[in-house]
Amino acid sequence: MDFDGVFTDGGIYINNEGNHIRRFDVKDGLGIKLLQRYSINIAIVSGSNSEVIEKRGKALDIKIIKKAVKNKYEEVKLIQQETGSIPNQTLFLGDDVNDLPVIPLVKFFIVPFDAHIACKKKADFIANSCGGKGFIREITDQILTAKGINPFKSFKGINDNEILRF
Amino acid sequence: MDFDGVFTDGGIYINNEGNHIRRFDVKDGLGIKLLQRYSINIAIVSGSNSEVIEKRGKALDIKIIKKAVKNKYEEVKLIQQETGSIPNQTLFLGDDVNDLPVIPLVKFFIVPFDAHIACKKKADFIANSCGGKGFIREITDQILTAKGINPFKSFKGINDNEILRF
Amino acid sequence: MDFDGVFTDGGIYINNEGNHIRRFDVKDGLGIKLLQRYSINIAIVSGSNSEVIEKRGKALDIKIIKKAVKNKYEEVKLIQQETGSIPNQTLFLGDDVNDLPVIPLVKFFIVPFDAHIACKKKADFIANSCGGKGFIREITDQILTAKGINPFKSFKGINDNEILRF
Amino acid sequence: MDFDGVFTDGGIYINNEGNHIRRFDVKDGLGIKLLQRYSINIAIVSGSNSEVIEKRGKALDIKIIKKAVKNKYEEVKLIQQETGSIPNQTLFLGDDVNDLPVIPLVKFFIVPFDAHIACKKKADFIANSCGGKGFIREITDQILTAKGINPFKSFKGINDNEILRF
Repeated sequence: MDFDGVFTDGGIYINNEGNHIRRFDVKDGLGIKLLQRYSINIAIVSGSNSEVIEKRGKALDIKIIKKAVKNKYEEVKLIQQETGSIPNQTLFLGDDVNDLPVIPLVKFFIVPFDAHIACKKKADFIANSCGGKGFIREITDQILTAKGINPFKSFKGINDNEILRF
Repeated sequence: MDFDGVFTDGGIYINNEGNHIRRFDVKDGLGIKLLQRYSINIAIVSGSNSEVIEKRGKALDIKIIKKAVKNKYEEVKLIQQETGSIPNQTLFLGDDVNDLPVIPLVKFFIVPFDAHIACKKKADFIANSCGGKGFIREITDQILTAKGINPFKSFKGINDNEILRF
Repeated sequence: MDFDGVFTDGGIYINNEGNHIRRFDVKDGLGIKLLQRYSINIAIVSGSNSEVIEKRGKALDIKIIKKAVKNKYEEVKLIQQETGSIPNQTLFLGDDVNDLPVIPLVKFFIVPFDAHIACKKKADFIANSCGGKGFIREITDQILTAKGINPFKSFKGINDNEILRF
Repeated sequence: MDFDGVFTDGGIYINNEGNHIRRFDVKDGLGIKLLQRYSINIAIVSGSNSEVIEKRGKALDIKIIKKAVKNKYEEVKLIQQETGSIPNQTLFLGDDVNDLPVIPLVKFFIVPFDAHIACKKKADFIANSCGGKGFIREITDQILTAKGINPFKSFKGINDNEILRF
């Protein structure tokens, strides 16, 4: 997954001192927890080098976090080698032209409703949700359904490691 | 009431240092004050352990604040025992699948317009307002009306304890 | 003018430490500067005691700032006495039921498009703009027009005191 | 380019201590990088004196940043002299009446969809996007197209100086 525009609505909040804030969606956070519960590997691949990426990624227990990525094609290829994944098992969620290079490496290139039009044109699937506003959750629910899991059933935490920290 | 997505629009703002910000609605705050004026017990039951929950809860004089709740069924049951409430006297405002377990314990399971579709399907009532944007106030006005109180009448503070700190 | 829901969209951002942030609109800020240029007295009358009210009020050179107001009727009456204004010369911009008490004291009770329905019912004028999103500017432009001033003409700063600090 | 309402949606976030935050759009940021890659000079000309302007401007490597500008006509004229640009080579992106004075100095006065109506009336072009929500990117894509460059093609960083810091 790309970060800005996927985990967020593309907004970057900057204060007087140059510190950054980003806005995340709690339903997307629960989506990430659901994907993890069913053993789907999640990676963040972002062109930005913001520290907020690590803060959010770690709060959601995402193990693979790549920042300041200049060439997403090379980075995704590397992640596939490290995790033993093949294109046929890889989905990519992106929203802008710097995500397009990954297309040859993935089965589905999936974009939010408010993606750049260049991405919508080349997407395998365009979500109904906008980035940072349920986009990840919408795709999560579809992945679960495709795996035969009902995404609508009640969710209860099982153990201490599952305290929801989003 | 659930917290994220009910008191807020589901947005979680995170900065460089990992500190959190959430956005609340002033009209919802006045709704909470109105409910308290007419002696309705309010509890927050959240899966999150964010400190913002206490900050907002205390600013609104909410006495029962439960954070990092893993099983909302057990927690709501406990609150009912502590307050001597029965399901027939209990409403729950929630917006996602981790709120669904409480349904057997409440008279009305009420969701905002932007709740997860799983919640909208099982809701007793779907509000016209979105979470964090008048949802609590809309339900407040309906509760007052059901109790024979006009929710449109002028509101004046009565005593020092009622300074509006929202 | 009320503060929350008029200068802002009603959103209150709260962080871990309980500090507050509010969101203002730059076009509303220019509206305030235009009103001041044409010698219209502006007062903020808010039920909240947030420090942000002073920060924003002072940045816009608003001289009369009343916070933690419990009874807006009494407060507006006081301001009218202090400024030698009469109801026929007074407009009030408000958005919720705690603003309704001022109606007998003002010529026009003006509300944003997203005001509480109780206020829209009793308003003399309902704006097309929402609170914190051009509401003050829309009313400014109408006031200027009513005074025979074209609100569309080019705006240039005249002197050092007019640096736009919004 | 004006700053507030062009790089941002016109929102100014102010906290207890009077510090400012503004919200930017990551797709607009990539638009700025694209314009720079194709050697288009970018200048910010703002009436505000906020420090956030420099923070954002520097993060995007914008060389000409003019703050606290009282007379945008004089300032734009000065920039044209300094950069050896003529009106026929100058576009201005603005959104409010304090931007109108620059019109005689530019080929196209371009405004976002949510510009003040006075600007929309006099604009050479009204974008489909709102300020701070893709406005700069929409214009970027049109400029690239006009120069015969496909704005939809994959974007990869070339060298170390191009790490995307937005």
